[in-house]
Amino acid sequence: MRIGVFDSGVGGITVLTELRRQLRDSSFVYLGDTANVPYGPKSAQHVERLSVDCALRLKKEGVDAVVVACNTASALALPAIQKAVGKIPVHGVVEPGVQSVANAIALLGSKAAPVLVLATRATIRSRAYGTRLEALLGPQGHPIIEQACPLLVPMIEEGWIDHPILHQTIAEYVGQHVSEHAPGVALLGCTHYPWIRAAFERALPGWEVVDSAQAVAEALGREQFEGAGLRAGRVEWIFTDPHAVPAFARALMEQSVMEPV
Amino acid sequence: MRIGVFDSGVGGITVLTELRRQLRDSSFVYLGDTANVPYGPKSAQHVERLSVDCALRLKKEGVDAVVVACNTASALALPAIQKAVGKIPVHGVVEPGVQSVANAIALLGSKAAPVLVLATRATIRSRAYGTRLEALLGPQGHPIIEQACPLLVPMIEEGWIDHPILHQTIAEYVGQHVSEHAPGVALLGCTHYPWIRAAFERALPGWEVVDSAQAVAEALGREQFEGAGLRAGRVEWIFTDPHAVPAFARALMEQSVMEPV
Repeated sequence: MRIGVFDSGVGGITVLTELRRQLRDSSFVYLGDTANVPYGPKSAQHVERLSVDCALRLKKEGVDAVVVACNTASALALPAIQKAVGKIPVHGVVEPGVQSVANAIALLGSKAAPVLVLATRATIRSRAYGTRLEALLGPQGHPIIEQACPLLVPMIEEGWIDHPILHQTIAEYVGQHVSEHAPGVALLGCTHYPWIRAAFERALPGWEVVDSAQAVAEALGREQFEGAGLRAGRVEWIFTDPHAVPAFARALMEQSVMEPV
Repeated sequence: MRIGVFDSGVGGITVLTELRRQLRDSSFVYLGDTANVPYGPKSAQHVERLSVDCALRLKKEGVDAVVVACNTASALALPAIQKAVGKIPVHGVVEPGVQSVANAIALLGSKAAPVLVLATRATIRSRAYGTRLEALLGPQGHPIIEQACPLLVPMIEEGWIDHPILHQTIAEYVGQHVSEHAPGVALLGCTHYPWIRAAFERALPGWEVVDSAQAVAEALGREQFEGAGLRAGRVEWIFTDPHAVPAFARALMEQSVMEPV
């Protein structure tokens, strides 16, 4: 099985890492659209156009399935991508993310625990998570809070993954919610955010942090691609602007290729 | 005279404002490549391709001159742009910026005053300013310091133009230079930076701050387009992703259109 994974930049590597853990007999093509990162501030129309281009590029590489490892593209462009690639199955991160939140809420057992969705501006504007979560958990009394965090992707792409200014920026985004609500479940609704999971956990004391990268890999490992074996899958890397790959991601890619996950 | 002005985003509006002050009988077409902002982290090859596309779009609009109101594009793509548009004159911001630094250094009269170039990662990597300034001022003993400030464009595009985190990020970029050098001349080598000129002045006490936006408008007003009259020129706005124009820039554009500058 050859699985194509794409993201606007290097964030999707967090999904790839999880997929390789779950699907040891598959091989992977990772496409990072570094020529167009970030997708978050772009319009829905433009994100759709770019996402379809990425999916068609992966189709040309002969993949058996496409994983949209980008919340912005998953939230805005999944139907267009599915239409463009025809019979090849397409998997986004939003639905697994929603399920993951629902599971965490059930485990918490608290009736009014709030859900805090953290994502890019385009994902929040699409209301992809908000609408689904309100339908699923709203009637049970869980407040659904949506917070756009537009500066985190640029900071992560800069390698500021444990920088005082990153911590302050996160505090700026979540501070008010933390003081207004009891702890609940926070969803990292951007595949860049698992790089800075520790920083989110620090800013959200007592909150359960779930991420869509892990969620999609678990969902796919369980439901879609049965018969996984033992070897770690090979990865081919494609970047639309190969000279614009952040140094910290290069280091991580090498590690990811060398290391049997 | 119809002048085409382009930038990766809304930063070039600072150049446009200065141009309208200097050239009151001209009309303007402003092209903001908001579909591809920011240019700063992209590779030289990719910036060149995008810049040529912008210039050709302005040529199709029938402009008499092209002003590249983006330091990254000026530093990396001026020859390619000139070749693409043929006989239409093309003006970048780097050379006026360099001249402006030289003038400020002459006025300071201090023999060893340092020059601090602040710009995007791509502009700094190109060494467009560094090479020219070292040739011009290095032999006189002026240290030339180049500092990439990659997170400032995303913050400005977010409207964080007087935000505590912006001030801290600037301090992070310039702090070491301020403590290691006596005050000198700081060049804002990105057309977004004049929006946050006050923040730079606060972080650089005693330094003379010059900006390339003002420099290019002054140079063009003086040398290139003689015979300016009295009316404020009309502006047409084009954005490659019209839904991705920051709110603070929209407000400013309206002001700029309504107000006789």
